[in-house]
Amino acid sequence: MGLLSPVRTGSAVEAATGDIAFLQAMLDAEAALARVVAPAGAAEAVAGAARAELYDVRDLALRARSGGNPVIPLVADLTAAVARTDREAASYVHRGATSQDIVDTAAMLVAARALPLIVADLERTAAELARLAAAHRDTPMPGRTLTQHAVPTTFGLKAAGWRTLVLDARDRLAALRPPAQLGGAAGTLAAFGAGFGAGAELLARFAEETGLAEPELPWHTLRTPIADLGTALAFAVGALGKVAADVLVLSRTEIGEVAEGAGGGSSAMPHKSNPVRATLLAAAARQAPQLAATLLGSLAAEDERPGGAWHAEWQTLRELLRLAGGSARDAVELTSGLKVFPDRMAEHLRLTGGLIVSERLAGALAPVVGRARAKELLTEASRRVAEEGVGLAEALAGVLPAERLRELTEPGTYLGSAPALVDRALARDA
Amino acid sequence: MGLLSPVRTGSAVEAATGDIAFLQAMLDAEAALARVVAPAGAAEAVAGAARAELYDVRDLALRARSGGNPVIPLVADLTAAVARTDREAASYVHRGATSQDIVDTAAMLVAARALPLIVADLERTAAELARLAAAHRDTPMPGRTLTQHAVPTTFGLKAAGWRTLVLDARDRLAALRPPAQLGGAAGTLAAFGAGFGAGAELLARFAEETGLAEPELPWHTLRTPIADLGTALAFAVGALGKVAADVLVLSRTEIGEVAEGAGGGSSAMPHKSNPVRATLLAAAARQAPQLAATLLGSLAAEDERPGGAWHAEWQTLRELLRLAGGSARDAVELTSGLKVFPDRMAEHLRLTGGLIVSERLAGALAPVVGRARAKELLTEASRRVAEEGVGLAEALAGVLPAERLRELTEPGTYLGSAPALVDRALARDA
Amino acid sequence: MGLLSPVRTGSAVEAATGDIAFLQAMLDAEAALARVVAPAGAAEAVAGAARAELYDVRDLALRARSGGNPVIPLVADLTAAVARTDREAASYVHRGATSQDIVDTAAMLVAARALPLIVADLERTAAELARLAAAHRDTPMPGRTLTQHAVPTTFGLKAAGWRTLVLDARDRLAALRPPAQLGGAAGTLAAFGAGFGAGAELLARFAEETGLAEPELPWHTLRTPIADLGTALAFAVGALGKVAADVLVLSRTEIGEVAEGAGGGSSAMPHKSNPVRATLLAAAARQAPQLAATLLGSLAAEDERPGGAWHAEWQTLRELLRLAGGSARDAVELTSGLKVFPDRMAEHLRLTGGLIVSERLAGALAPVVGRARAKELLTEASRRVAEEGVGLAEALAGVLPAERLRELTEPGTYLGSAPALVDRALARDA
Amino acid sequence: MGLLSPVRTGSAVEAATGDIAFLQAMLDAEAALARVVAPAGAAEAVAGAARAELYDVRDLALRARSGGNPVIPLVADLTAAVARTDREAASYVHRGATSQDIVDTAAMLVAARALPLIVADLERTAAELARLAAAHRDTPMPGRTLTQHAVPTTFGLKAAGWRTLVLDARDRLAALRPPAQLGGAAGTLAAFGAGFGAGAELLARFAEETGLAEPELPWHTLRTPIADLGTALAFAVGALGKVAADVLVLSRTEIGEVAEGAGGGSSAMPHKSNPVRATLLAAAARQAPQLAATLLGSLAAEDERPGGAWHAEWQTLRELLRLAGGSARDAVELTSGLKVFPDRMAEHLRLTGGLIVSERLAGALAPVVGRARAKELLTEASRRVAEEGVGLAEALAGVLPAERLRELTEPGTYLGSAPALVDRALARDA
Repeated sequence: MGLLSPVRTGSAVEAATGDIAFLQAMLDAEAALARVVAPAGAAEAVAGAARAELYDVRDLALRARSGGNPVIPLVADLTAAVARTDREAASYVHRGATSQDIVDTAAMLVAARALPLIVADLERTAAELARLAAAHRDTPMPGRTLTQHAVPTTFGLKAAGWRTLVLDARDRLAALRPPAQLGGAAGTLAAFGAGFGAGAELLARFAEETGLAEPELPWHTLRTPIADLGTALAFAVGALGKVAADVLVLSRTEIGEVAEGAGGGSSAMPHKSNPVRATLLAAAARQAPQLAATLLGSLAAEDERPGGAWHAEWQTLRELLRLAGGSARDAVELTSGLKVFPDRMAEHLRLTGGLIVSERLAGALAPVVGRARAKELLTEASRRVAEEGVGLAEALAGVLPAERLRELTEPGTYLGSAPALVDRALARDA
Repeated sequence: MGLLSPVRTGSAVEAATGDIAFLQAMLDAEAALARVVAPAGAAEAVAGAARAELYDVRDLALRARSGGNPVIPLVADLTAAVARTDREAASYVHRGATSQDIVDTAAMLVAARALPLIVADLERTAAELARLAAAHRDTPMPGRTLTQHAVPTTFGLKAAGWRTLVLDARDRLAALRPPAQLGGAAGTLAAFGAGFGAGAELLARFAEETGLAEPELPWHTLRTPIADLGTALAFAVGALGKVAADVLVLSRTEIGEVAEGAGGGSSAMPHKSNPVRATLLAAAARQAPQLAATLLGSLAAEDERPGGAWHAEWQTLRELLRLAGGSARDAVELTSGLKVFPDRMAEHLRLTGGLIVSERLAGALAPVVGRARAKELLTEASRRVAEEGVGLAEALAGVLPAERLRELTEPGTYLGSAPALVDRALARDA
Repeated sequence: MGLLSPVRTGSAVEAATGDIAFLQAMLDAEAALARVVAPAGAAEAVAGAARAELYDVRDLALRARSGGNPVIPLVADLTAAVARTDREAASYVHRGATSQDIVDTAAMLVAARALPLIVADLERTAAELARLAAAHRDTPMPGRTLTQHAVPTTFGLKAAGWRTLVLDARDRLAALRPPAQLGGAAGTLAAFGAGFGAGAELLARFAEETGLAEPELPWHTLRTPIADLGTALAFAVGALGKVAADVLVLSRTEIGEVAEGAGGGSSAMPHKSNPVRATLLAAAARQAPQLAATLLGSLAAEDERPGGAWHAEWQTLRELLRLAGGSARDAVELTSGLKVFPDRMAEHLRLTGGLIVSERLAGALAPVVGRARAKELLTEASRRVAEEGVGLAEALAGVLPAERLRELTEPGTYLGSAPALVDRALARDA
Repeated sequence: MGLLSPVRTGSAVEAATGDIAFLQAMLDAEAALARVVAPAGAAEAVAGAARAELYDVRDLALRARSGGNPVIPLVADLTAAVARTDREAASYVHRGATSQDIVDTAAMLVAARALPLIVADLERTAAELARLAAAHRDTPMPGRTLTQHAVPTTFGLKAAGWRTLVLDARDRLAALRPPAQLGGAAGTLAAFGAGFGAGAELLARFAEETGLAEPELPWHTLRTPIADLGTALAFAVGALGKVAADVLVLSRTEIGEVAEGAGGGSSAMPHKSNPVRATLLAAAARQAPQLAATLLGSLAAEDERPGGAWHAEWQTLRELLRLAGGSARDAVELTSGLKVFPDRMAEHLRLTGGLIVSERLAGALAPVVGRARAKELLTEASRRVAEEGVGLAEALAGVLPAERLRELTEPGTYLGSAPALVDRALARDA
């Protein structure tokens, strides 16, 4: 019921990937198959019985243990249900297919239904980030490397970078075309007989009936679609994990340059307002890569159906879909509500007494005193700034005219191409 | 409902790790806390309300999203429930504690309740394997390396080795002592006041009330207990994965040296009897290592409570418990029903025309013709055996007396210490 | 020196990814930068000193510890080397750049140089597989699911499936366009001054000089290129792991349907001929997914340069390149030398007394006796075949005409669309 | 040469795990074997030739490809070398053993030699942390949860917690007893003949000669020793990753509560002093879990020697040893040089105007105004503190006497059991 995975609880993808949804997808696969192999009336009878609410999921799950997959009991129940209205039609249920055809097609249907939900939330997130990037195109803030102030950047560039990653994730997910699966017992389509143009027509018609892509071959142990889903989903979770990592840093009590719109409370401390959305995104980003690894590991699947590699995919892929779906949902909440505090950013730019632009000073001094001497002067000045609390301009007094030093040590004018890079990034079509 | 994870469906550990069980464990933690911090009557009131059936898990899960963990809504509901019978007692609910104290203690309670179930099934498995090892102590079969026949071994030694691994897993799980968690908002126990002997007494009493081990320190970001659970559980799943890997090989149609007692059927092929239990164990063994990796990764948790690393543990640890619990349950089924076919093993020993004991021949020829010449002779003889289908004794005719060659090329007498090693392994106390 | 990783030892990719190659790539990045920011003469001086053989890699590695990356000591040494011939030119070394610009650009150069080697070996492998698929388009063999004979397939379809996976891997790797990295201290290009059209021109020119793709933005913490490399490389290793998994099964002593051209010997057993290439591919396929997980995990990188996530990529990406490069090299050896034994395949098709086509019988009997009765008959007949050793035709005697039963129980005529699917797969352009 | 893995470069463990060290360990294993199976003089001749400097590692690595492991060429070269001085002795080289005996024993020798180095550095680290914990037992600092100030703690408690984790790691590594490996071709010891008391004596004597632990059974596919090493090493890297995670946070420019003794410089910015040791530890902690996962995955190893699972361990275990060894070395540097700034900590405690002790106020107000009203008052007061910049005492003026409010809002007196917990933790024997 989602008690231990708040990132996904209540999301649209949670519902779209639940056991009921998967059961319905298996029934949809059976109904699509009937439309291909059975006369119209029989197919209609199968479709009529292919409604998840007619079956007991828990009972199916328990009976699935015997053969190791849920299709065997499902076919029995579906056949019985069809037979109750149309005995003849019942003989067409599952005809020619194997369990894996149904499980894989169902998994692809579930994925194909979940993906647009995730993509839509990624696009909403990207739109929010475009708004933030544009609004803060020129808002200076400290750039930070290895936890230390480096040189100034702008919050707009940070938000634009987030958006680029989110669009990269969107592109990878939107490009996926989950294929239908149909191969029969060992991928030769033998039980379907010879009436389907040597298989090609059969693959095409079944794919069309399911609404999924047509596969090049039956892919029982050619798991490209699973691996591609796994890596694209983990990429998406990771991309949002980058946003979360930054929000967690910038929300720190001592930094406070951003805050979540509705921070989370505490069971003990009345004052707390925690970056909860970022926390949940970060938690997802710690789990997804290893789940993707399990799916990549299942590429090495022996025979025409492996003993284990296939079964390891089911729960893993579902969990990845949920982490991605929940993360995307939470990313919309996070980015739409994010509060930005330019004053705190400006304050922090002054925190190091000008050291944050020491690079600029190095560049300005080098032509005057030589590169090596410039470095010496700056190292000594940096020491004085850190230890004696003087400003960098003061510590360098006399080396350049005071006015020039004042200009050079002003962080807000050392933004380089940051604003222009924001424009460049925002030019990418969402 | 377990539709996509048959390895765990219906197992005792599945029930012991479900959302209801976790909710009850959180309530148990709150009740234990009340027994430590509240007067007896108030503690009783809290305990009376600490029953999972009084709460709506799904509603708690949804409200958990706001603060990122389920304790905040639970404390609200529990407080309200207690207040209905004892307004005064309500003020003691969750007193001094933080959400993490409750979630972590609950996780340890769930683990502590699941572990004996897993250990018991591992011991049942070990007992079955002891039976098989003893029964087949001297049953010769091909030893196989890199998929090829190497030299003979006995099925007893194989089973004894499985048992050793299973006992290793049992030992690692049985040695775990999940500790209670109590630290308060940041691990200093500050909100509990000074009445508890500077914390030590408090930790001891809370641990005692929960039935869990006493921690050395509050361990909010000292995640040894989680990492230890993760690695021991993954070890157990991996150990059973070794059994499964061998059963899958030995069950192959062409090999058929063992078979599962109740093999799984097929939705398409009437004749199939699949090694389903081994398949499910193998599937679990492909998932568990990566889940353990996620838990090991959460060791690197910043601050007094991290934004993400902690939350990433919840679902991951639960899934590992379930994979281990389901695998142990299925291992009992697999090993108790395993059919062994010594005739097939004997037949396979003759499959290579004596080459399976070429090592013995090398040893016997070396003193006679020299080591290098022995190798030449055997390489040539091996070629003839493989290509011409003659037996190794025939291919070496003349090099040694025929009777001696016959003896040396008999696989069943080249078992080395296999039977003695079985005895040695079985001497290990279960 | 590769003692513990034979899959990569001696491969072209091993050399292309070694420390010397990486050093040269860093120097190439510095030389390219000089061509962008320095006058032609100075750039030439830098390029003249940008030769790896002039530097002591081990010394650089040791000095890299101080700042945590190898660029700091390298810039010092390069500057000194340039200064020896052209003091003025030395002042242009590394101008405007940050360490990460050089390390990332070097990593992309190394990847860009290794990828065509891998792609070429994948294409060679695909060509070998096309040859095998065409040659064995109609060669019947047992299809196997969950380790058991299912229905017949052809070896051509298996090889065609392998090829499809290999081409999928090829396509993913060939589509990669590793970008140059240039951002300066915090990704704003500030130190390059305003002369480069607000950054865009600078990115374009640097990319052109390196021969790498132009990035949309500096990507110091937008790690799409690394994640994409990681997942595509792990995919390739996994795809070849599928080939290996099948070869390992089919090479088993009891199966022997294929053999490696030059199997590996044994230190103990003169007769052994091990599937060594498949073994090494399988070993790589067990490592690559987790390495990809580490790279996916590094997406969640805080700030403008993270403290750890970046550094975790270096060795990991290199190891992935090597596993992929070594696997691709070994796959060429494996597939070009693979021996196929149609006689063994044919023999195995008869191993189950006709049960391998029980699916066909079910289809043929259903219209005659009804689906349920057909299943009963086949279950009973299967039992007799397994227990009494009679053939399926005999066990079903009387149900259909003897001649018809003989035809139906002939495995070689139940290949379904296998040959046609081979044609379909081979139509895909290599 | 370590260019891309600065965490390990130049460490003692790097040298102890290199190809030369591994080669020597393989030779040590062969020499130990000779002492068991050969006459004294012959054993001496083997030992005399068992010196790594006599062999060409790269050549061995290249020839290892043929059989897939380095023992086959090594035995050839060693035999030839022995034969040059003692032709008879040469016949005892590798007698009775299989490649895996030598590789596994060598891996355990390498591990057994590296572990004390790691343990020693962990103990040095623990000693430094004990010093820090004692020195800062009472040094107040903000406790932080989900990135936000929670309640005060002491730096001593933080350091004591680090030490606890480091000692946990030490304990896990120090408890390891890597066993020798000896089984012969398929684990039956058959080629050693019957002179060794049915194997037990042989295992005992070989173990004694190697200095390693005696195994219960030959463990060719019972990989407990590898899995235990993998998880203990990953635990150690993760434990140090926790230290690193905290140092990275506390070193941030805005926080500055600690600093590395010798921070790393920058190639671009003269002022930077980066937490480089923490960065390298954090990078290692991101890699180790996945490497451990690969080793856990290799538990599921089929047959008497698997085609892949075994080979996947070699480089992975070595890399884990190196990450742990390098991390432990760097942890000594980090902790021995760590600078602590109590003034900054004190300053931060005042940063939230008293909100950091809102929990204490909640406890103090509840008995006066009731728990619910106390929460309301604090929520409102927290809002005013955050928005209007008044102190918490001021915001609550009138609710309690001013003096009492002053006392209650003083962070430095709300440390709870932190100092006592430090004592408790330091009582644990190092």
